[in-house]
Amino acid sequence: MASRLSNLSVDGERLWQTLMDTARFGGTPKGGVRRLALSDEDRQVRNWLADQAKSAGYTFGVDDLGNMYVQRPGRDQTRDPIAMGSHLDTQPTGGKFDGVLGVLAGLEVLRTLDDAKIETDAPICLVNWTNEEGARFAPGEMGSEVFAGDVTHEFALSRKDADGISVAEALQRIGYGGNERAGERRFAAMIELHIEQGPVLESQNLVIGVVDAAKGQMWYNGSVLGRESHAGTTPMDLRRDAFTAFSEFSLEIERIARSEAPAGVGTIGVATIGPGARNTIPGSVEFSLEFRHSNGERLAAMHDAAAAAAERISAGRGVSVRIERIWQKAPVAFAPQIVEIIDAAAKRLGHQTLRMTSGAGHDAVAVASVVPTAMIFVPCKDGISHNEAENATPRDCTAGANVLLHSVLGLSGVHGHD
Amino acid sequence: MASRLSNLSVDGERLWQTLMDTARFGGTPKGGVRRLALSDEDRQVRNWLADQAKSAGYTFGVDDLGNMYVQRPGRDQTRDPIAMGSHLDTQPTGGKFDGVLGVLAGLEVLRTLDDAKIETDAPICLVNWTNEEGARFAPGEMGSEVFAGDVTHEFALSRKDADGISVAEALQRIGYGGNERAGERRFAAMIELHIEQGPVLESQNLVIGVVDAAKGQMWYNGSVLGRESHAGTTPMDLRRDAFTAFSEFSLEIERIARSEAPAGVGTIGVATIGPGARNTIPGSVEFSLEFRHSNGERLAAMHDAAAAAAERISAGRGVSVRIERIWQKAPVAFAPQIVEIIDAAAKRLGHQTLRMTSGAGHDAVAVASVVPTAMIFVPCKDGISHNEAENATPRDCTAGANVLLHSVLGLSGVHGHD
Repeated sequence: MASRLSNLSVDGERLWQTLMDTARFGGTPKGGVRRLALSDEDRQVRNWLADQAKSAGYTFGVDDLGNMYVQRPGRDQTRDPIAMGSHLDTQPTGGKFDGVLGVLAGLEVLRTLDDAKIETDAPICLVNWTNEEGARFAPGEMGSEVFAGDVTHEFALSRKDADGISVAEALQRIGYGGNERAGERRFAAMIELHIEQGPVLESQNLVIGVVDAAKGQMWYNGSVLGRESHAGTTPMDLRRDAFTAFSEFSLEIERIARSEAPAGVGTIGVATIGPGARNTIPGSVEFSLEFRHSNGERLAAMHDAAAAAAERISAGRGVSVRIERIWQKAPVAFAPQIVEIIDAAAKRLGHQTLRMTSGAGHDAVAVASVVPTAMIFVPCKDGISHNEAENATPRDCTAGANVLLHSVLGLSGVHGHD
Repeated sequence: MASRLSNLSVDGERLWQTLMDTARFGGTPKGGVRRLALSDEDRQVRNWLADQAKSAGYTFGVDDLGNMYVQRPGRDQTRDPIAMGSHLDTQPTGGKFDGVLGVLAGLEVLRTLDDAKIETDAPICLVNWTNEEGARFAPGEMGSEVFAGDVTHEFALSRKDADGISVAEALQRIGYGGNERAGERRFAAMIELHIEQGPVLESQNLVIGVVDAAKGQMWYNGSVLGRESHAGTTPMDLRRDAFTAFSEFSLEIERIARSEAPAGVGTIGVATIGPGARNTIPGSVEFSLEFRHSNGERLAAMHDAAAAAAERISAGRGVSVRIERIWQKAPVAFAPQIVEIIDAAAKRLGHQTLRMTSGAGHDAVAVASVVPTAMIFVPCKDGISHNEAENATPRDCTAGANVLLHSVLGLSGVHGHD
């Protein structure tokens, strides 16, 4: 029995077929998926999942945010279930894997247990969290953040899309406003399998990332004020060029982030030069800046270093470089015991694992404050996501699902094993 | 007589009054001047100048480009005249001094010679060059470039403004299409007095700049191509950030230009980041670049250094930095003998002089290819020009006019003096 359990494997072909089949709900001509939260396409895939749950005999519940719970009973129904969860909604021009893999791999885990007639000690619950993407209704991670108590039901349900339709109305319309109150369910643990949405695993030729934290973030608006003047008649030493000052600042941000690599990143994504004329020395720059780091103290140190660089460059060049923090979010450390269980399961399956921090937001990051949680990453092609070209291999999806399976089994316990 | 000549001075108050009086032709509420080439306001100031010429008994001519020639006879009418020239047209929101000072100081020189009853050996000719600004009809330096043979009559006369009115039609309409063919007149020398339009004289607390050259220029379009990716999930070492690469390039351009200071300058005035989203690493930058240098070889060296920097940064960062030269103009060296005469005149008047190169275009730069030419600069407040706030002091305008007076006298010769 020990050997049968340790050799247990998901049906990779069935998982892949399910990924490809459900991609028709909102499928685009370019091979992507457009399945906005609580849209008709979302209703279709939700109905499909509900049908799978009912035909397999799982218990099925929906809460007032539309979060769907597909639960396979355990031997000890008094134990809190082990959750697996992600989301089935996509970006407007999204791919077949972001979120979807985590839900369908969870379904494959349940099917595999059924096929092998394995009874777990604790129940196992697959969750489809509502509106992770935030593309139709902002903000994202909506279902999971309400579940975690970070966002109120009232706030979330009153958010509106571009046509003025509220989340509550959209839930009603597709028939997914459940009676259960989001956040009332208790879970012993939650694991989310997800594509990495970055290039790290692929670059190191690895298949399994064990995610032990999510980066904290600090977002800024910034400006540089110099002096606009004639590009032909103003010698170099009499310039107060806002753009060369900003270039220096930009390289300082890069240096600060590199010194915190790989856990820290820093990015300037937007910069607008004023007046923006070919033969006028720039007098101003408006820009965005963001830092992310898995360690809160180091994130604060990045902030301090950026502020010091702004001051130093301002003084050195006779300009004014200013940054204003407009939003921040603390790093999240996933539950070490869940991280260890995932890591051990992956290693038993023969994988070399990489400890990673998630740079993007996920349902697991929201839920982590109320449920012991961690994540599994698998590679995606060229690190591309939020794009119809998003891709992952059957081999890697299968590997991720197997790590999910054995991690969940390790957490749930199996009758007659320990 | 020697003493009377060497002590000769323009009437600074009259000059200033004339500057202020003529500023009413196109005067703006903010104290600037809007006097577009060949407009009604231009006609008004031209008519005023023609009236001054006629009432003083000067000979008066207009060529087919509308260039106006106000000539005071010399003792030896077979000698080529000494020319003083600049322009009376302005930018749409221009000031009272750019161009205007050179013409009105020339008029003041003629008036001063009249008052002192001085007969010069060579005739002296004041020129008002047509459409230096190029604001209504592009390109600028139109009258002087046709005079120099750099631009054909046909090309210039067929240029149209935004309303479809050609230069030929506009000349006809204001009555300044003359019978004389531009370029037929011969001059022994040409001197243009102009405000600096830059901050150098003011910063060194000097009054007289002796301009011995005009910078050559190279203009470029450029691009950086990197890889657009997620700001949260892409570690620093796997980025191909087009903007940090461009920041490095921008500082290299600054370094190259600083190493050629003060004769060389380099400016990036335009830069547009793609896609320009807060949490996306920039995948592309489109930008402008220009170099100016008074020495053609050094200008070419700046080009080579920029091309090498683009290549080095491309290789070092896995991006593609490209620059494409879209326009160039060789430096112009003014006539050394004219430069020396100006310098000597200024020093005799007690000025510490600064040898300068013009970073902007001027009628003198165009004319220099066919007439021995040089320029005199006087300071303008904060280096500001092409702006209604453009300003210069009566003291500096007077000083400039006196240097012009004594330079012209040195070139024309005065009967009975040597």
